[in-house]
Amino acid sequence: MCEANVYLLNEKGEERLFLESVDKIIPNGDELCLEDIFNRKKYIKAKIKEMELVEHRIILEKID
Amino acid sequence: MCEANVYLLNEKGEERLFLESVDKIIPNGDELCLEDIFNRKKYIKAKIKEMELVEHRIILEKID
Repeated sequence: MCEANVYLLNEKGEERLFLESVDKIIPNGDELCLEDIFNRKKYIKAKIKEMELVEHRIILEKID
Repeated sequence: MCEANVYLLNEKGEERLFLESVDKIIPNGDELCLEDIFNRKKYIKAKIKEMELVEHRIILEKID
């Protein structure tokens, strides 16, 4: 499966796991809707900083 | 491998293949830097409309 783990950068610039096994990401304004392979959804005001699909990594940055 | 194919929506709302086998996406302002698994890079003024990683699909929308 080609889902990714989504990490959120904290104030110190450290990556913290936000949601595992993410299948879908749908941006909507300044919010992202993340959906994992079990159809669980999580919403966050953030933007994508970087995606490395082969490494299954997506890094988010909070929007203040 | 868990790369994705990136499609760009045209004026008619149809998806057109923009870049295959994309590994990395790095947003920078209103531009996206896409890098495929062969380290070929392509830049485009666009935003991510939708990602379906399990389906290896990423849809972009041009920014005017």
